[in-house]
Amino acid sequence: MSSDTYDAFLAHVQQLTYLGDAAGVLDWDQQVMMPDAGTPARAKQKSALSTLRHELLTDDDLAAWLDDLEAADLSGEQEAVVREIRRQHERAARVPEELVQQISEATSNALPVWEQAKAEDDFAAFEGALEELVELKREYADAIDPDRDPYEVLFEEYEPYLGIDTAEAVLERLGEELPPLIEAVGDSDTEMADPFQGTYPEADQEALVRETLDALGYDWDRGRLDTSSHPFTSGTQFDARITTRFQPETPLDALTSTIHEFGHATYALGLPDEAYGTPLGEDRDLTVHESQSRLWENHVGRSRPFWDFLAPAVEEHLGVDAPAGDLYQAANEVYDDNLVRVEADELTYHMHILVRFEIERDLIRGDLAVSEVPQVWNDKYEEYLGIRPDTDAEGCLQDIHWCHGMFGYFPTYTLGSVLAAQLDAALRSDMALDDRIRGGEFDPLREWLGDAVHQHGCRYTTPELVQEATGEAFTADYFLEYVSEKYGDLYDL
Amino acid sequence: MSSDTYDAFLAHVQQLTYLGDAAGVLDWDQQVMMPDAGTPARAKQKSALSTLRHELLTDDDLAAWLDDLEAADLSGEQEAVVREIRRQHERAARVPEELVQQISEATSNALPVWEQAKAEDDFAAFEGALEELVELKREYADAIDPDRDPYEVLFEEYEPYLGIDTAEAVLERLGEELPPLIEAVGDSDTEMADPFQGTYPEADQEALVRETLDALGYDWDRGRLDTSSHPFTSGTQFDARITTRFQPETPLDALTSTIHEFGHATYALGLPDEAYGTPLGEDRDLTVHESQSRLWENHVGRSRPFWDFLAPAVEEHLGVDAPAGDLYQAANEVYDDNLVRVEADELTYHMHILVRFEIERDLIRGDLAVSEVPQVWNDKYEEYLGIRPDTDAEGCLQDIHWCHGMFGYFPTYTLGSVLAAQLDAALRSDMALDDRIRGGEFDPLREWLGDAVHQHGCRYTTPELVQEATGEAFTADYFLEYVSEKYGDLYDL
Repeated sequence: MSSDTYDAFLAHVQQLTYLGDAAGVLDWDQQVMMPDAGTPARAKQKSALSTLRHELLTDDDLAAWLDDLEAADLSGEQEAVVREIRRQHERAARVPEELVQQISEATSNALPVWEQAKAEDDFAAFEGALEELVELKREYADAIDPDRDPYEVLFEEYEPYLGIDTAEAVLERLGEELPPLIEAVGDSDTEMADPFQGTYPEADQEALVRETLDALGYDWDRGRLDTSSHPFTSGTQFDARITTRFQPETPLDALTSTIHEFGHATYALGLPDEAYGTPLGEDRDLTVHESQSRLWENHVGRSRPFWDFLAPAVEEHLGVDAPAGDLYQAANEVYDDNLVRVEADELTYHMHILVRFEIERDLIRGDLAVSEVPQVWNDKYEEYLGIRPDTDAEGCLQDIHWCHGMFGYFPTYTLGSVLAAQLDAALRSDMALDDRIRGGEFDPLREWLGDAVHQHGCRYTTPELVQEATGEAFTADYFLEYVSEKYGDLYDL
Repeated sequence: MSSDTYDAFLAHVQQLTYLGDAAGVLDWDQQVMMPDAGTPARAKQKSALSTLRHELLTDDDLAAWLDDLEAADLSGEQEAVVREIRRQHERAARVPEELVQQISEATSNALPVWEQAKAEDDFAAFEGALEELVELKREYADAIDPDRDPYEVLFEEYEPYLGIDTAEAVLERLGEELPPLIEAVGDSDTEMADPFQGTYPEADQEALVRETLDALGYDWDRGRLDTSSHPFTSGTQFDARITTRFQPETPLDALTSTIHEFGHATYALGLPDEAYGTPLGEDRDLTVHESQSRLWENHVGRSRPFWDFLAPAVEEHLGVDAPAGDLYQAANEVYDDNLVRVEADELTYHMHILVRFEIERDLIRGDLAVSEVPQVWNDKYEEYLGIRPDTDAEGCLQDIHWCHGMFGYFPTYTLGSVLAAQLDAALRSDMALDDRIRGGEFDPLREWLGDAVHQHGCRYTTPELVQEATGEAFTADYFLEYVSEKYGDLYDL
């Protein structure tokens, strides 16, 4: 193996990445800027990029380089690049082109069917499409590895290294330990303040959100803020953009979701410039990404000192003159009768995830029929949250994920929250974070996360990165400690 | 040849087009939305798309399909597709990859050098870069066809079918017939009215521009209006976007340049949806494109009846209560002491082009040294326009085209104006256009152009299309008639 091989391999990998990032720009544009009628042409453009990317990823040259490089004497960083591309190459190469095409068509077709079924509260109308998607994704998992649990294989698409056993253990533990806490909160006589009683013009909310991003240290020279129907973050270390949405009566939603997206963007912007185009300049998948967004959203943006800091800006832009403590309460109210995941608080959120996790796992393993989903969904909501949806529209039809064929994605939301708490604990042992937050000094926090997490890109696997950043293995201890202390305090438990 | 061959060929061609259009989206985003620091990553993404597109275009399979299809019995439309792709394939396949790379690097490097040379009025600082570009583009032309005039070969990159002889003859004729008219205008005692004496806020100008686009029939469901440092149009029949720019003291600039871009966008939007991805759904190069923008900008937007129509909106949005005749005069003032091409009127504009055409032709043919450009430029301005630049910044350094390596592009501006006048004459024989314009009825005009030009895509070569649309061969007669009548009238000649 000469270093020429590594160079040729790396150039190929860079083309792959650039193509993926180009597709990301097309996606952002479609969700934020594109006029409605542009869809058919955009679909063709995205499909062309996706086909070409698949060809590059399954290329024979790439396979040969990987073989050569795995037998060669490489640096740790080079080994990490080879490891990541090997994984992507194997997954892509093992799945027949035709199956990729079928899944792509089935998800495209399923989208309007799901939208209508949800609008009309008619699960039966979606049942056939969902059955087809479950079947196709089982085939997909089987193509990648026929000897392993298909749900495990699908889960690894979103979190490749933490292991399904870890995910399952964490979710089970939360399923045991959170419900008593949620119940105690529900039984508590303490009520959270609600100082947001008016309607708040979009321009005022936007001014508050922009000032908040300024304060947190968002690099406007490498970013933008726009609106879209669902908030998201898109981009690279050179250009990581945020979207949000504004609702007149719930200004906290735009604020907290923007802080969440800021966390994602800050991760992207913290990846090393010089490694752009290689796995060393790429984020470490969804668990770690979600840990960054949730750390900023919850451990910063929903903390008591943050509201001490932000209260004057809230008064200035929204005209709400409330004590910081009231703002803090409003940002942390637990809605134990809420049926909708995306509106859930930090406690009940994970019960929403647990329901989805258990159902999708059983669907993919063949232990549950699609027709049984509504019944099982409602039973599980009753079991874990003590509430029961009246309709499937506010039940098992609420999320878009399955309709996109994304089975195995949901657990990463909880894993991200759990990791956020672990990182928060580690960084608090290094600095007096509350004082910093209260004083509006966010640079040290951003720098800590940059050193501990962002700069490494995919140099380490997820467990290695967690160990490197926190000095311990991945654990839910800190998350459970955090929520029990926070909500015990808020609700006088 | 089975029809399978044509289908496989067409699928390949579509991938090519989709990739090019994806690059177009990246380009639009870069000029309109991208944060400044995004440049390095965007350059990599665009270069990856360009490399992959070049690979698809020079692919051996494509070459074999072209050979097979040229020997087969095809429909007229299929023949047109094969003709267009053959031409693109030959041009791409004959140029060594290394030369393409050299040109790409040389143009990237030249840009900041030109910007600084222009800012500091220092042609000598740009001389070396320009010499390199001239040399590389001569090599490029030589690679494509060593037996033909290199300038002709370069010109065909922008106008492949009209022929350099036609371009040269038209430019020479304008060079003879326009100067006496320009001189007469300069000698005339008649002065144009100037009702725009104030400063006009961007929001007011934008409201006027948007109302104008509404009236002209811009399809907002397939387009957008944004601002950028140079106005341009980008997109496809599904999504054709316009940009403009606003200067406080010259509201006519934003208005006329937006109408110009509307003409380009209307061409794109008039291409057939069902042919998207193939040459039958692509525009017929720069002469025809520019004919559409100039027809709308000049024959509509600078016509007397247009100002009858628009005067109330000008009063409403800009507070300028001027007679339509004054607005008409203001939109058509001839600036015979203007040195800047992009600020030129319909008459002197072509003298600016003639200077550039003669210089770039002689440079590429080796009949002029780069060091002589400033002197020759100034002499020609004196000869054709009776004015002489004091500095190279407002002389030969003013345009970006050469710095981009675009030699052979300038003539298409004049060819477009000439064709616009020919189309205008043809459509006026079919309808009372002035009445329609005065009444704000632009649909019949858009439909006429759709039938005559847009719907054909690249079905015909440029001369065929001109014949098809106007019933005559390409001619400058109508343009010369139009300007001599219009300016004779305006300036009482």
